Amino acid sequence: MYRSETCGQLRSSDINKEVVLSGWVQKVRDKGFMIWADLRDRYGITQLIFDEERTSKEIMEQAKSLGREFVVQINGKVIERSSKNPNMATGDIEILVSKLVVLNKSLLPPFTIEDQTDGGEDIRMKYRYLDIRRNPVKNNLIFRHKVTMEVRKYLSDQAFIEVETPYLIKSTPEGARDFVVPSRMNEGQFYALPQSPQTFKQLLMVGGMDKYFQIVKCFRDEDLRADRQPEFTQIDCEMAFVEQEDILQVFEGLTRHLLKEIKGVEIGDFPRMTYDDAMQKYGNDKPDIRFGMEFGELNTVTQHKDFAIFNDAELVVGIAVPGGAAYTRKEIDALIDWVRRPQVGAKGMVYAKYNEDGSFKSSVDKFYNEKDIAQWADVTNAKPGDLICVLSGETLKTRTQLSALRMELAQRLGLRNKDEFAPLWVVDFPLLELDEETGHYHAMHHPFTSPKPGQMELLDSNPGAVKANAYDLVLNGNEIGGGSIRIHDKETQATMFRHLGFTAEEAKAQFGFLMDAFQYGAPPHGGLAFGLDRLVAILGGQETIRDFIAFPKNNSGRDVMIDAPAFIDDAQLKELNLKLDIQS
Amino acid sequence: MYRSETCGQLRSSDINKEVVLSGWVQKVRDKGFMIWADLRDRYGITQLIFDEERTSKEIMEQAKSLGREFVVQINGKVIERSSKNPNMATGDIEILVSKLVVLNKSLLPPFTIEDQTDGGEDIRMKYRYLDIRRNPVKNNLIFRHKVTMEVRKYLSDQAFIEVETPYLIKSTPEGARDFVVPSRMNEGQFYALPQSPQTFKQLLMVGGMDKYFQIVKCFRDEDLRADRQPEFTQIDCEMAFVEQEDILQVFEGLTRHLLKEIKGVEIGDFPRMTYDDAMQKYGNDKPDIRFGMEFGELNTVTQHKDFAIFNDAELVVGIAVPGGAAYTRKEIDALIDWVRRPQVGAKGMVYAKYNEDGSFKSSVDKFYNEKDIAQWADVTNAKPGDLICVLSGETLKTRTQLSALRMELAQRLGLRNKDEFAPLWVVDFPLLELDEETGHYHAMHHPFTSPKPGQMELLDSNPGAVKANAYDLVLNGNEIGGGSIRIHDKETQATMFRHLGFTAEEAKAQFGFLMDAFQYGAPPHGGLAFGLDRLVAILGGQETIRDFIAFPKNNSGRDVMIDAPAFIDDAQLKELNLKLDIQS
Repeated sequence: MYRSETCGQLRSSDINKEVVLSGWVQKVRDKGFMIWADLRDRYGITQLIFDEERTSKEIMEQAKSLGREFVVQINGKVIERSSKNPNMATGDIEILVSKLVVLNKSLLPPFTIEDQTDGGEDIRMKYRYLDIRRNPVKNNLIFRHKVTMEVRKYLSDQAFIEVETPYLIKSTPEGARDFVVPSRMNEGQFYALPQSPQTFKQLLMVGGMDKYFQIVKCFRDEDLRADRQPEFTQIDCEMAFVEQEDILQVFEGLTRHLLKEIKGVEIGDFPRMTYDDAMQKYGNDKPDIRFGMEFGELNTVTQHKDFAIFNDAELVVGIAVPGGAAYTRKEIDALIDWVRRPQVGAKGMVYAKYNEDGSFKSSVDKFYNEKDIAQWADVTNAKPGDLICVLSGETLKTRTQLSALRMELAQRLGLRNKDEFAPLWVVDFPLLELDEETGHYHAMHHPFTSPKPGQMELLDSNPGAVKANAYDLVLNGNEIGGGSIRIHDKETQATMFRHLGFTAEEAKAQFGFLMDAFQYGAPPHGGLAFGLDRLVAILGGQETIRDFIAFPKNNSGRDVMIDAPAFIDDAQLKELNLKLDIQS
Repeated sequence: MYRSETCGQLRSSDINKEVVLSGWVQKVRDKGFMIWADLRDRYGITQLIFDEERTSKEIMEQAKSLGREFVVQINGKVIERSSKNPNMATGDIEILVSKLVVLNKSLLPPFTIEDQTDGGEDIRMKYRYLDIRRNPVKNNLIFRHKVTMEVRKYLSDQAFIEVETPYLIKSTPEGARDFVVPSRMNEGQFYALPQSPQTFKQLLMVGGMDKYFQIVKCFRDEDLRADRQPEFTQIDCEMAFVEQEDILQVFEGLTRHLLKEIKGVEIGDFPRMTYDDAMQKYGNDKPDIRFGMEFGELNTVTQHKDFAIFNDAELVVGIAVPGGAAYTRKEIDALIDWVRRPQVGAKGMVYAKYNEDGSFKSSVDKFYNEKDIAQWADVTNAKPGDLICVLSGETLKTRTQLSALRMELAQRLGLRNKDEFAPLWVVDFPLLELDEETGHYHAMHHPFTSPKPGQMELLDSNPGAVKANAYDLVLNGNEIGGGSIRIHDKETQATMFRHLGFTAEEAKAQFGFLMDAFQYGAPPHGGLAFGLDRLVAILGGQETIRDFIAFPKNNSGRDVMIDAPAFIDDAQLKELNLKLDIQS
């Protein structure tokens, strides 16, 4: 038996108890005649004491040789500490050690195993097994476990069945790139790893499973933007015989349950906003509504003067920054530089100070008088003391730029409070999205999303205007889930594929099984998928998903700890009927 | 709203209620003036009634046009049935339909959606979404969900943390073949899909996670024997600061919990048997102990006469078949033919009848008298009325053959009762196993398994004799779980790799990260993995894992429903820097 209790367990009520503990040496303080060592395990830290008067010489010598992260097992007696530590759960006691066994030595770790470590990201990833010993990472993983347990409990209680769908499926060119897996037994053929279990969950609905969920890994071979992973985890859900409202109710319930159980936060009905409204008010389909700074569209109150930049713009739009009238010229110039960074891409920024005394001072006083600016203040809901920031240009781009500015300012102003949770539903998404590069429309959610009733006809005349029963769940400015009501009949699905540029043959080759299934009594159905990594990070009050993944990959898709991917044997390639084709 | 209740919900207490139901048409009985239809969903079946006197002509016409598996929504009133059906939960009531909407039509399904279907395996797999509508498959999937929920609940309550380990890892030549995944971003390099999360769970122990579990997909590119799947699911577990006994206690507890919660069966302490005993008594390291027929070794009581076949044999071993003395000559000849089938491979079988009157009659009466045979009966524990079956030859082969015969006879005698559960631990497995083909030893569990204390020295002198703290959990003749205490220091691990034929360079290239980790304070640790598919099948009283997998693959590793694997685009290959290399 390696231990009688854990290192987080002993209290003053245990005084005089003989115990056995095992763990890692967190630190040693050697005063010569007296030595203290902190012994750590997953559950806490317990202080060990060795002293000349009560400890044998042999054990004193052993204690002196202990290094950081040595793994030791001790026997000893629980005694009262002379100077108690109220900040530690075990701070009332310490262990007078009577036996010490070093179970394993340790090299000096390449970074300190402390909450605030001296190790940078790269070294921590290479030695991730040491990083996991640190409380912040360890607690994130435990937190993730707690969230998934609650998700499963809630959904199971609501009669959802977790069904495992296959990982070795078929490659489809739709959307992002698939990872593929060569088949040895089927010469020259490949499986693909799923980007999501979408078609399988729909087949489960055709199969009468009624309510399905799965916490499941998904795979996307994309060029990795910051904070994306080639493998990620979804809470994937689908329901039959439902309308959009049924789905929103269930998953609002799940989210409310998580906020309550995990964060102790009670939230009433989630607000709902159409996609069009979200874009107009926040320039963004996943608005952070923990704070205001809603957009005010200024075309009508700016385009009556000689200011060509505004007059030529498709959209003139502003926000009121609380307290911004006090910004210095230098601070405002820095803001202008910020919006002109290539990552944001604005050409410039017009601003107007709404001074505390009620006067206005703008960067375009040449063109606009105080009465004009007062109208801007009215539209942007600015108060005395605020700064009105105005961008202009093409509608979509300008909204995106102003949204970036809004988020940045909120961050600087401390308005993005990690302990506040502001969920909302964004609904009525467009069915299709224009790809600027190719000029083709593609599915905004995916090709299985159903247009709203009666809108099929618009597909030919005005495809961009067709709305879908598609919805996103947004939390604190992040999309944490999204879904839709699906197509459930073969004809509509065929029409949709045609509009997305599939030939009938392509549609049949790739999704024939699904369209066949729709002919055998497919029920109306719809669903939703949460991004678990993101959800957990946000509930945990953080935004970096990597911190909530045990063994994440870096931005090149590499696991630097195990050094994967790697080259494989020629024999292995040959068995798979493959040759490398590398241009040197 | 598609329904106010499900098709399994209404009772006589609901009579006169107006309800909305949705589901599939199971069958229609049309008497002209009266039509009954069974409406089915996941939750049950409700009878609908349409009759000339109370139903509008229009709806009568609609009802007449309903086909099997049509998806319909109805409004109606719950009424009392004139002839109740006590075998149905909803058998007291029926619904007098006032409105009928066909939500989706159905082609005639290619097989009947009944508990006993007319569809063969192939067609059911191709239309698996229809197969899932059948109760046996649907209930198996729901059963699987119930088992995994209980597993998670039990382990979580015991402070285990579910941690997701990566799916895109590194290929290692040890054991079965890996599936590999070409990396687009890392030219010419490959990920591998995990055969198990073995090294990652050990790293989590090094990382102080203390108690880990995960229900996780694993992948093996093997030539598929009957009832193996290229992707399969494990309940994977690992614990730090444990000895073998701690692990057996925890997972015996889990298994006992499942048997109680899922099957209502209470079982005391699980028996334990050494590997050597299991081989000697049952010829098998996963004995089915629901019944007797233990082996009796007959060398000493057979090798004193002139019967060369026995005298030349390494092992002479028999079992007593209850009631077998009554077998006819023809039946016994059929048994002899059975053991001589190539799948079993015995050269022949000697038998002796222990007649009810106490006399003996054997197939080798020329060599052995009644007194000799009485000794056989004594060793095999035969009773009057039994048949003693004796095989002989090389020890391991003969045991395997007799084990096959024992299982076959038990099956025929109805001794393998699916409602009886007989778990046991098989312990003290050999560390290494001789590969007959190559003459090399390889790891019986895996190369991370620790030899028993003090046995490292034997590795050089007598590798086959080294025992490990390795254990299997066996249930009804199936291995449902297995594990071991692991090596946790770099030197021992390096020695082990050397004995398994790795050069120091190979060991470093493939497992350097693990051996490095062992240098930074690795705790003693060990674990176990259950095969979930098999566990669920056995708990469900069946032996075919395919019946408990939503979308299984066939013996060529194909998903015949979606037709995967499949060929991929040249462009996709090119992006992956690959060329097909097919010998035509």
